[in-house]
Order: sequence, then C-alpha cells, then structure tokens
Amino acid sequence: MADLPIHLEFALPDWVVPHVAAWPRARDDEARMRLVLGLARESVERDDGGPFAAAVFSEERVVAVGINRVLPEKNSLLHAEVLALMLAERHYASHNLGEAGLPQLTLISSCEPCAMCLGAILWGGLRRVVSGALREDAEQAGFDEGPVFPASHRYLEARGIELAHGVLRAEARELFALYRARGGRVY
Amino acid sequence: MADLPIHLEFALPDWVVPHVAAWPRARDDEARMRLVLGLARESVERDDGGPFAAAVFSEERVVAVGINRVLPEKNSLLHAEVLALMLAERHYASHNLGEAGLPQLTLISSCEPCAMCLGAILWGGLRRVVSGALREDAEQAGFDEGPVFPASHRYLEARGIELAHGVLRAEARELFALYRARGGRVY
Repeated sequence: MADLPIHLEFALPDWVVPHVAAWPRARDDEARMRLVLGLARESVERDDGGPFAAAVFSEERVVAVGINRVLPEKNSLLHAEVLALMLAERHYASHNLGEAGLPQLTLISSCEPCAMCLGAILWGGLRRVVSGALREDAEQAGFDEGPVFPASHRYLEARGIELAHGVLRAEARELFALYRARGGRVY
Repeated sequence: MADLPIHLEFALPDWVVPHVAAWPRARDDEARMRLVLGLARESVERDDGGPFAAAVFSEERVVAVGINRVLPEKNSLLHAEVLALMLAERHYASHNLGEAGLPQLTLISSCEPCAMCLGAILWGGLRRVVSGALREDAEQAGFDEGPVFPASHRYLEARGIELAHGVLRAEARELFALYRARGGRVY
C-alpha cells in the first residue's frame, strides 16, 4: 500500500491571471460571459484544454475562474465549473458560497452545466448560474451532458437557484467549431 | 487580480494509508464494502469529515480511496467518490478509468452516489459501482442527494455501467447514527 495515492494538486495555467487582469470591468451578464468566452478561446488557442470556461463573479469582480483541464491534468472531473467553484471556495475559505456574509455570487459558464456540475452548483451554495451554449450545441459537437433532465433544473430552481441559459449562445457555440478546427480531442 | 486563486491542493489524512494497508484482502463486494465502511468509521471517529467513504478496486487490490473532506478542506465538491476517482485517475495517469489496457475497476461507495458523483462516475469511465446505504438513509440523516432520478440510473446503465445498491446497507446506515451521535455537522 506504499503506493496508495493520497495527494492531489492542480493549477490553472499562468496566462490566466494576466488574461483576467487585462479584461475590462464586466457590468452585466453579457460582459461577464464575454470574459468567460475569451478565457475558453485563449485556452483552445493554446491547446490548454477543452472548449469550456467558467467564472464566479461578485457583481463586476472576478472571484475565481476555471477552464476545462480534463486532458492536460488527466482528470475527468476538472470541468471549468468544478475548478471555478473549488477556487472560489478556496478564496472565501468556505464550502458554502451562499453563506450569510458573502456577497451575492453568480457562476457564468460558457456552456450549460453537465450533470456533475449541476450537482456541484447545488452543493456549492450558488444562487445564480448563467450559461452560454446550450446542451444541444455541446452534444452536436460530441460532448455528452450526462443525466440532466428538465426535472434536474426544476430541482435546483426549487432550492432558490436562478438558472439562465443561452446568453451569447452564438459566440459560445463558436468555441466548439474552433476546437474541432484545431483538431481538439472530443473525449 | 493579483489575488486570483489558481492553485488547489488536497491530501487525504496520513492515517488512511496504514488503515488500508492493515486491511485483509477483499475478495468480494461485501469484503470490499467492509474496508470502505471501516474507512468512513475511522474518519468519523477522528472528526475528519462527513460519514462517507469510497474506494476504487481492481479485483482485490485497492487502487485509491476517498473520504468525505467537505468540512475539513472547506470544499463542497470533495465527496468521497470525487477523491477516490481523482486519485485513481492520478494513479493510472488517465482521465478514463475504462480505458483499454486498464484492469476492470469497481467503485465501492458507502452510500448511493449523489447527482454530482453520478456524473463524475460517468465521466471517469467506471464500469461498475457498488453502494451501501440507500438514498433514503442519507436523506433521513439530513444529507441531500440532489437531482437523481430513476432515469439517472437508467442513463448510466444504458452506457454499460453496472450499478448495485444496498450492499451491507444496515452497517452503512449505522455510520449516519454514529456521526449524529458524535455531534457531526450536517451541511
């Protein structure tokens, strides 16, 4: 059992920090989505992961971001939303992003969250989620969304989570075409 | 943006390695479940996390284990299954535990996987999942399972994933009582 793995470590690539720092203030959901789509685009152009990005915002301020790191980190769980949520929780040193005393937070995702990420959103205590590309856009590009049903969204909404879909959908969908055009692997 | 978090690091507590090393060989699902329930029990007794554990087995061999680390790591995503899957993927240096060339792997979980973990099982490429306590046992203890429906299980089964529930259910359910008796926090 000497080889039982017990340690995990991940980091976003270094380019992410200046990318976010150089971005203008994001005053509304479309502007916030543009930042997220810009992250996903840079990630694809650098061959740094799948065509997905996400960010947790407190009003105009970026609290944490994530990009898809499944292939570079050889870790199937590292969806953009998972990293953005984990890093936001690290930032606030809390497992509950809906905790009293924290600002109102919004998760912006370049694509509708998959089954795993919907669960993660619920456990993370997020109250508001805005996504870009729709499930069918991801599926058309070959990416599965898993067991997500209309009842899954209703389940989250019944717990007070606001879900908005399709913000800048056309631009978000273009990421899949870019990824395919560059020979990106659909896993 | 100097404070944008980009780094994450987690480790299972040190006691986990000798605990697993001291365990007898687990020749069937009940024996494998006993190892997992033992891990969850020790974790609760040490106040090291929620009353959940999981492990990935290749036949008798433990490849990786996880325990619930939500409260100690202040990270809502660190369910036992998430850690076991991430650590198994690290062990094999692959984002796909169903990859050709890898042994047949089974995930044993002390409780039916929640919505997030069901998604993670699908993305991790697992072909076989065995769980102990049922959803209603967890819910009775105050733990939510999220948007999991009969159709969610059928979705995984249609993709060739074998799901078995209720193995050593009574023993698995006792963990919740132990946790409550020790004043464990239901989050």
